Amino acid sequence: MIIEILCVGNELLSGFTFNSNAHWLANKITAVGGTIRRVTVVGDKLNEISAAVHESLARKPDILITTGGLGATYDDLTIEGMALALGKKAVLDKRAVVMLKKSYAVRKLDYELTEARLKMAKIPEGSTPLQNLIGSAPGVLMKAGRTRIFSLQGVPPEMKAIFERYILPILKDEVGRFVALEINYNIRGVTEAMIAPMLVKIVESHPRNAIYLKTHPRGYYRKKTPQLRIQLISRGSERKTVKKRLDAIATIIEKEAIALGGRIC
Amino acid sequence: MIIEILCVGNELLSGFTFNSNAHWLANKITAVGGTIRRVTVVGDKLNEISAAVHESLARKPDILITTGGLGATYDDLTIEGMALALGKKAVLDKRAVVMLKKSYAVRKLDYELTEARLKMAKIPEGSTPLQNLIGSAPGVLMKAGRTRIFSLQGVPPEMKAIFERYILPILKDEVGRFVALEINYNIRGVTEAMIAPMLVKIVESHPRNAIYLKTHPRGYYRKKTPQLRIQLISRGSERKTVKKRLDAIATIIEKEAIALGGRIC
Repeated sequence: MIIEILCVGNELLSGFTFNSNAHWLANKITAVGGTIRRVTVVGDKLNEISAAVHESLARKPDILITTGGLGATYDDLTIEGMALALGKKAVLDKRAVVMLKKSYAVRKLDYELTEARLKMAKIPEGSTPLQNLIGSAPGVLMKAGRTRIFSLQGVPPEMKAIFERYILPILKDEVGRFVALEINYNIRGVTEAMIAPMLVKIVESHPRNAIYLKTHPRGYYRKKTPQLRIQLISRGSERKTVKKRLDAIATIIEKEAIALGGRIC
Repeated sequence: MIIEILCVGNELLSGFTFNSNAHWLANKITAVGGTIRRVTVVGDKLNEISAAVHESLARKPDILITTGGLGATYDDLTIEGMALALGKKAVLDKRAVVMLKKSYAVRKLDYELTEARLKMAKIPEGSTPLQNLIGSAPGVLMKAGRTRIFSLQGVPPEMKAIFERYILPILKDEVGRFVALEINYNIRGVTEAMIAPMLVKIVESHPRNAIYLKTHPRGYYRKKTPQLRIQLISRGSERKTVKKRLDAIATIIEKEAIALGGRIC
């Protein structure tokens, strides 16, 4: 299950807003065994959005998730950019209008459906609106070749609600049985360079995707003693096999770290 | 001055690590008047890195900054990916070896130059190593057509030091005189949809890039009253003009917000 994320918003490129959406999605998707292949961030520009969607679709992910740019203002251009990339028109969708009304009703908001508000009910022809119960603009589900595209809001609680209601169940169904066990070591006195040859051997002796082994340098203790975090994840469909593999590699790492003069903290 | 950022690291795609590098760079670059057009995040895979570099160069940014993947371990592949994208070989660079030795000497580390360590001194033919005084792996400066490519470390203090020493001075020189003044309003009782038509008019009546006007919905107060942040940035080369423009637009926004029944908090 290969997933790409496209975040839209000038505020992400200017550093005004931390891209917490990408981070939250990454965690959620990884936790159920999905793989994020790429995250792209572009500004609120029609041609940038359209180009990024086009490029992503050419890489044929199973799912493309976009965040941001669904609102009522002039610079919310995700739907238009998406329509452009797909060669479709963005049209007023009756179901989306009903959803918009419902989202106001749920929150007891007595809003008129002005032109600006109806912009949020315009979606690419042939796509499906997704009910937003926390904010106003519906999410959108589109299909392009083998890729399902979900356009989600930029406001985190709205984005999260749509993800959990519409995308998470798909991931859980389609990724299938998936177990991931993780262990992390904080080691003092060993550098990446020192332990690298051993890690290569471990990685090469296991099936691809069965393990994830990564070193994270953590600076120097008292400016002299290197600190390293080693992250080990064992993955698979059977808990027993996954656990056995994790334990076996953990033993090798512990021994080697100590042999190299390191201390596990 | 158009800049792209490419962050390399599985840990960013899995949600293990927050992409603080992209956020930090965005803030620094925006503050001196540079524009980030796109941020891309890919994993530690040779073909992914190479493809992302290739695509970025096709968009001809002035500068491409990469972060991550310069270390000694098997999964640090940025240099190799860069070399592949540029059609160059990664070769042991004498200057980089001197830098590596210096980085150890500065930190009083008595390390042997093993094969794993010398990997950090291999850079694409024709490129220039950049001294890293905080960690080990040198940064790298390459040229491809009109684009200068800076490959920086993934460890934040190392990345920041190289950015401030080698990239920031270029931005300050080349972006030229640049003034940006910003004002933010927190408004209660007004939604994006309500204020959108007025914002469109303001944006359309100013030169492109002279102003940045963005609404950030901030949920609902007591579940009913909409809250909105309006961010206004006025930019230009002359402080006086920039200030005058900011004040004029601010007055319009304040009046309109109140006319719509809003309260500025």
